[in-house]
Amino acid sequence: MTITITAFQASPDRGRGLARDMHVRWALEEVGQPYDVRLVTFAEMKQPAHLARHPFGQIPTYEENGLTLFESGAIILHIAEHHPGLFPEEPDARARAIMWMFAALSTIEPVVVEFTTTLIFDRDRPWYADRLPVLQDRARTRLGQLAERLGDADWLDGEFSAGDLLVIDVLRRLASSGLLDEFPTVAAYVARGEARPAFQRAFADQLAVFTASQAAP
Amino acid sequence: MTITITAFQASPDRGRGLARDMHVRWALEEVGQPYDVRLVTFAEMKQPAHLARHPFGQIPTYEENGLTLFESGAIILHIAEHHPGLFPEEPDARARAIMWMFAALSTIEPVVVEFTTTLIFDRDRPWYADRLPVLQDRARTRLGQLAERLGDADWLDGEFSAGDLLVIDVLRRLASSGLLDEFPTVAAYVARGEARPAFQRAFADQLAVFTASQAAP
Repeated sequence: MTITITAFQASPDRGRGLARDMHVRWALEEVGQPYDVRLVTFAEMKQPAHLARHPFGQIPTYEENGLTLFESGAIILHIAEHHPGLFPEEPDARARAIMWMFAALSTIEPVVVEFTTTLIFDRDRPWYADRLPVLQDRARTRLGQLAERLGDADWLDGEFSAGDLLVIDVLRRLASSGLLDEFPTVAAYVARGEARPAFQRAFADQLAVFTASQAAP
Repeated sequence: MTITITAFQASPDRGRGLARDMHVRWALEEVGQPYDVRLVTFAEMKQPAHLARHPFGQIPTYEENGLTLFESGAIILHIAEHHPGLFPEEPDARARAIMWMFAALSTIEPVVVEFTTTLIFDRDRPWYADRLPVLQDRARTRLGQLAERLGDADWLDGEFSAGDLLVIDVLRRLASSGLLDEFPTVAAYVARGEARPAFQRAFADQLAVFTASQAAP
């Protein structure tokens, strides 16, 4: 039962582990499943072989025994359903872990990505000065609401779950913005995730891919 | 086993069924489950009673037998797991239905929402003319990729599933933009969803709430 995922041949984040294969690598490390990685270039991502796996031409994808999935949320849910370690056993707690997975990807991530991409890519655009404070306030509001719910707990709902994994990995995109520093309990929550051995192994593996891509002739 | 959801007391979309309670209403109608609705004003959504249900102060929420959920994706997944009609039985097909649920909310919706909110709310901004075409092209790219995957099939992966429900309900936000008209097979796919009796019942119910809110003294 070999698992194969796809990842950037040379990640645009230069090995900072912000590409979405990191979500899946971390999940597979948490449950102790080995996997192969098929590296794809930006050109290959737009070609038929990859589009057959991922209609939107992105990474990661997941292949196992004839099943092909895209969407890191769906991939992690599949992993969590088949291996212990990412979902609580109690049905209501499991439903809440899934709730935090969706919250990470559909309520937190869009706000985080809109802010950080504007910050990084739109500095010379006419809308930058007008728009950045709006997006920053929106991200700040989400972080404040998350801090309120988290309180002084280690994780969002009891034990560490796939929900924490995705919320933390999405929040990591804010690292270079300095915004997390305004919310010390949330920053500590992210740091707790990054300190997990499974995270460390996943991070090292994706960094090794980037380093190798730079060493190539 | 009473199900209670929350919805806007007076939806800002004026009854067009674009608020996210529509996702959940539609899913509950597909599986034939009755439910109660607790209407909330914008002020109530920011108060502790509602924030206990939804830390980000939004709608919908879902309550059933002591379980409280937010995130329409997680709510629909919970409904689909407990009642036949929204997930195929075959495990791989079920995983792909979940994949389309995540695709709807984390790959399609952010692009659609960024385009439509700019179109509606930012017309008087000095950067509107510069930014709108960028967002429109991004939405167009997603629609083209979706059309490619859909082909001439009725639904995305065999029978109608919770994945189709969410993809279609997210695409409905594009109705007033005219963008769907450029992709006739996708427009027909959305129309097929809207023609389902369960959709029709859900739409009528949310419209009745808005109509009542306008008739109130």
